Order: sequence, then C-alpha cells, then structure tokens
Amino acid sequence: MEEKKEIALKNIPTRASEQYRNFPMVPRVVYGKGSFDQLGDILMPKRRHSEAPMIFLVDDVFENKPLLERIPTIFCDQIILISSNEEPKTEQVDALVKKILADFGDLPSGIIGIGGGTLLDLAKAVALLLTNKGSASDYQGWDLVNTPAVYHVGVPTISGTGAEVSRTTVLMGPDKKLGINSDYTTFDQVVLDPDLTEGVPKDQWFYTGMDCFIHCIESLNGTFLNAFSKSYGEKSLDLCKEVFLGTNSATDSREKLMMASWHGGMSIAYSQVGVAHAMSYGLGYVLGVKHGIGNCLVFQYLEEFYPEGVSMFKKMLQKHAIELPVGICANLSDAEMNTMITVAMGMAPLWENALGENWKTIVTPKKLASIYKKI
Amino acid sequence: MEEKKEIALKNIPTRASEQYRNFPMVPRVVYGKGSFDQLGDILMPKRRHSEAPMIFLVDDVFENKPLLERIPTIFCDQIILISSNEEPKTEQVDALVKKILADFGDLPSGIIGIGGGTLLDLAKAVALLLTNKGSASDYQGWDLVNTPAVYHVGVPTISGTGAEVSRTTVLMGPDKKLGINSDYTTFDQVVLDPDLTEGVPKDQWFYTGMDCFIHCIESLNGTFLNAFSKSYGEKSLDLCKEVFLGTNSATDSREKLMMASWHGGMSIAYSQVGVAHAMSYGLGYVLGVKHGIGNCLVFQYLEEFYPEGVSMFKKMLQKHAIELPVGICANLSDAEMNTMITVAMGMAPLWENALGENWKTIVTPKKLASIYKKI
Repeated sequence: MEEKKEIALKNIPTRASEQYRNFPMVPRVVYGKGSFDQLGDILMPKRRHSEAPMIFLVDDVFENKPLLERIPTIFCDQIILISSNEEPKTEQVDALVKKILADFGDLPSGIIGIGGGTLLDLAKAVALLLTNKGSASDYQGWDLVNTPAVYHVGVPTISGTGAEVSRTTVLMGPDKKLGINSDYTTFDQVVLDPDLTEGVPKDQWFYTGMDCFIHCIESLNGTFLNAFSKSYGEKSLDLCKEVFLGTNSATDSREKLMMASWHGGMSIAYSQVGVAHAMSYGLGYVLGVKHGIGNCLVFQYLEEFYPEGVSMFKKMLQKHAIELPVGICANLSDAEMNTMITVAMGMAPLWENALGENWKTIVTPKKLASIYKKI
Repeated sequence: MEEKKEIALKNIPTRASEQYRNFPMVPRVVYGKGSFDQLGDILMPKRRHSEAPMIFLVDDVFENKPLLERIPTIFCDQIILISSNEEPKTEQVDALVKKILADFGDLPSGIIGIGGGTLLDLAKAVALLLTNKGSASDYQGWDLVNTPAVYHVGVPTISGTGAEVSRTTVLMGPDKKLGINSDYTTFDQVVLDPDLTEGVPKDQWFYTGMDCFIHCIESLNGTFLNAFSKSYGEKSLDLCKEVFLGTNSATDSREKLMMASWHGGMSIAYSQVGVAHAMSYGLGYVLGVKHGIGNCLVFQYLEEFYPEGVSMFKKMLQKHAIELPVGICANLSDAEMNTMITVAMGMAPLWENALGENWKTIVTPKKLASIYKKI
C-alpha cells in the first residue's frame, strides 16, 4: 500500500509539468437537441465484428424509461444498468471488467457511458481496465496507464461535472479517492444532446451545476491558470451565471448548462480546482457524500478564499430555494475527522493552485476541522 | 470541369446535414508561451523510421530568423520555406506533394505547418494529398476525401484565421476557390505558442485579427447557429473586443488573440460564415486579394447586414489608425466583375446562413456589384 501511494505520488503534477501539457481533446463531438439518435450510425464503423459487442453502461434512473428503447443495440450488445447513488469504486470497475471478459471471452468493440459523472467515470475506467492488467486501484494517480483503452463514448444526461471532456476518472479506491489521470482516459467520442437532461430532479440539477460553477471559481482564482484555461473558465462561468441567476426558457437553460459543463471541463486543461474540491474529497471519502453536494456543503463556508464566488453561490441557493442539508459532520469521531483532514490535505496540487506554494502556512488541520464542523 | 463542379456541389452542406455533424476536434493541443520548444518531444514518437522525415513548411518571413534554428530537425528532415504573399493554390499543393514523394520515395512521418493561414492550409492539404491520389483540386468541396492524411501538425505564428482548428483548407483551384472540407483535414496536433506571434507587422496583425472578428459577427448573426457554436463565438468575440478596443499589455494581447482565433475556429463547427466571407472569396478569386484584408474591404460596407458589427469594426480601424486601401475594384472589366459576383453567389451555404433560405430574393448580382464598386 505504501509502495502504491509512492507510485501515485511521484507523478503528481507540479506547476512546471502541467505548464506545457500536451492536452488530449475529445477527438469527436456531436452537439444538438435529438443528437442521441445519431449514436447508432456513430458506433457502426467502430464495431469490430458481430461477436464484439458494444456495452452500454446506463444510469438505472432510466430503467423502464423511453431512453432505454432508443439505445441502438444490435448483435450481442449489452445494456448494464448501474445505480449512481454512490460514487464509482475501483472494485466496481474491476467487477464490471471481469464480467464483460467472462461474458464474451474477447474485448468488446466499445463502452458507452450514459448518465452523469458516475456513469461517465465508470465507462472511462472500464474501457481502460479492459486493456490494462490488474485493478483500477493500480492506476489511480497521474499518467500510470500505458495502453490505450477500448473505444469509449460519453453521453451525459446531466450537466456540470465536466467528466465528458476531462482526462480523469475519479474513483473511490481501497485507500484513496483519486482519479485515473491519463491521456487514454479521455473519451473517443462525446454525444451532447441537451434534451437528455430533461427531467433531472431540481436538487440534483442544482448540485451538479454547482460542481461546474465551483470548478470555475476555483480555477479562475487559482495560480496555475493560463490564457487557454482562463478563456474556457470565463465562458463557463458566464453561462453558469446566465443559467442560475438569469431568466431562460427551460430549453435554453439546458443547452447553456451543457455548454457550461463542457467549457468548464476544458478549462481544467491548464488549471486545477481548489479548496472546495480538496475538502469535498475528504467528505466523500469518509461519509460517501457525493461530489456535487459535497462541493456545495464545503463551498458555502469558503468566503475567506472565494468571497465573490461564495456570495454569488448564496444568491443562487436563494433564487432556486435550495436548502442544503445540515449537521452532516455533527457526529464524526475524532478518527473520522482526522481521516477527512488527511484526505483533504493530501490533495497538494489543489491547495498549491488555490493558495500558492506556501499553502501549508495558511491551511492547517485545525482550520480544516473548524470548517468541517460547520457542515 | 462541369463534372468536377457537380461532384463538389452534390455534397454542399445544408442546414439539415450540418445540424448533427460529428465534428472532429484537434485531438492534441499544447498551449503556452515558449511551448514551441516542446515540438521535438511531440514529434519523436510519430517518427516511423529514420528515412521517413518530418517536413516543415515554414513561412519565408522566418528566413534567417532565430525561429528557424529552433525547428527540431533530425535525420533527413526538411524545412521548406514558402511565401505567404499569395493565397495557397491547388497546383502548389500538387507540386509540393510531387517533390516530397520524389525526394524520399516514401511517405514522410509528418507535415508541420509553421505560419499563418496560408502555411497551415498548405500543410493540411499536402498531408491529405500524400495519401489521396490525384490533384488537390479533385477534393475541393465537402467530404470528398476518403483516406486519412499523413500525421500533420499546425503551429500558428499569427492569430485570427482559425485554420489551426478547422476542418477545411481553403485553396485557389483552376476553376474555384474552395476548401477541402473533410474530417481528415483537421490537424492531429496543434502547438499554440503566443510568443511566436511577436513581431507580426501591425497591418497584418489587424487584418488577420479581423478575420476572426468578422467570423464571429457572421456566425453569431447567422441562422445555422446552435448553442455549441454560440458559446464559442461569444467568447471569441469578447476576446476580440478586449484585444482591439481594450487596454492590454502586448503579451496579454497576443495570448487573448490566439485564444480568440481558437474559439472562433471552433464556433464554425455548427455555424457558417456569411456575407463578408462570400464576397471576399470573389475578391480573392479575381484579384488575388488575401482573405484577411479582403474581409475587411468588404465588411466596411455591410452595415445593412451587420449594423452593430460594422460600427465596432470602424472603431477598431480608428483606434489602430488602419487605413484600408481604396480603389481596388475601380478598373475591373465587366467580365471580371461578373466572375467576382458569380464566385460570391456560388457560396450558397454562406448566404443561406446569413439571410435564410430565401436569400436570393435579397441578394442580387446588382446589389453585389454596387458593393464591390465601392471597394
């Protein structure tokens, strides 16, 4: 375990290594209301043969919903319904890979993730682990993957995570919550159909949208930023403001938030998230709090770091009558609190981005405990 | 010739065919001041063997300049200096392809274009024609290319054309000026180093930047636009306004204009240019007027179509003390004027984007002649 940690840590991105990253963009993207119906045509030339199926990993909220009928399955294609109630886990990835290999004895033609961040991250990780030996937990870290993944496609059905465009898949492992960050993680194809986000429950819409908003605040206020990421981050933030503080038709709002998520994800190319994400990782690790709501729970108490952003966030909460849960950390044991703080403080690049090289002089376990206790 | 025209025309994009285009994005991009020095490392894994060279097509303004020394040539790599005083031609592409094949008897490992739109378009076209038989003029049109190009890299040294990110390479052919629009046209890699745009003469900086600005005005005011392209176009336009009407350090200005060009190019994914580009094609075809300045010459007289944009453009001209040339079309013969109008009116999708399906009721040869005569 110690050894594994060291492998991951030795590749942690520094300001210098990130500065000239040769960033992998999603090489194919379709955008448009109703574009989901292009999926069959898009997949056809990627089918290796009739025994090499397309595997669709689909959020189980779509069980018995019309979307399932529209999935273009042929031959021995499989639809696997997966709950997104919990964050994706390395063992879940390993089990899916084992099942797919056992069912077909050969690599599938492709993996298609249809859902939110959880499903998209699972699809990326399964595609990677089908061609890379061992457990998903072996690859949590930066640039540990050496073999290209199976062809993989992302179809977001909720907007905000940026998972559709990022080079990471964040997984809960046996000893850490950390992304598989690699050039092979990025989807080969993304289908952006804003109609698919119709019907998302309001709370989830808000929390996931705030993931994007908080991304932007953190990256635009970070020290890693360059002009490339700044331009994407600014556009994403503008769109978030329009969606959450402006007046839009439901259709416009869905379209804008889908693009906000896309640009927000792109802005991460040469930037990094910050305090809210670091602390939200701790919440997720110890309490299983989901990423979107976890960011919100933390962010409300970060005036010290992001005064303008937090003030805007509070207006958004009010406008949409969102009541954040309270007392989440009320009954934590000391050991749990310590783990939470250790996980959060382990995200060194996030802290360095937010506060510069001397971040440890500003952020102490005591300070983090005082923030967590409010939540 | 008639037959060739027909082949090109039968694939002209319509609103319906463009709506769900599976757009090819540049799969790899490096951004950063000084990132040009990454090029050697980027090319290394793409070298097939020591006899398969990298061919660098470089704007000859860099002759005897320090940039030439920084080009990472090894083995039998070749640097070919090319003037960008004229727009790229299909016969020039054919000659370059013939020369490269004759010099090496095998396909090169890659083609790297270093320069403005002319050099980037030449690099794309040469890479395509190395693997696709016949003349470049056979492929002018939409989706006529069937074989992937040789690996090709774009390194812009002036900002505004969007050629670094687009799926076209616009060439002057024997019977038409038209792009080779295809999924294989897009660069495999782009290196965005804003330092390379230092030293561009002011007039050229302005005209090329205006290519981007006019792109944005045309696409944002067009009828083909969707939320994807709108978000890119808006960001590009914001950056153009900052660069040409705001106050920036020279470094900031270069960085912002490089990103404006990038986003402007992306915005074309689901949009189209309009009146200025259509008419500028005519100017280029008959008089060899370059694209950037041609757009400006036309655009100043398009208040009827783009009132806000033309007003902003005039402020930009004034702020930067740019004097557009006059009397360009003063001595045209009737035959030349007719050709110019025919070429311009041949760009049906541009007119449809600008003015809707009934564009022919608004735009007549007489109206175009009256605008051209002012130039």
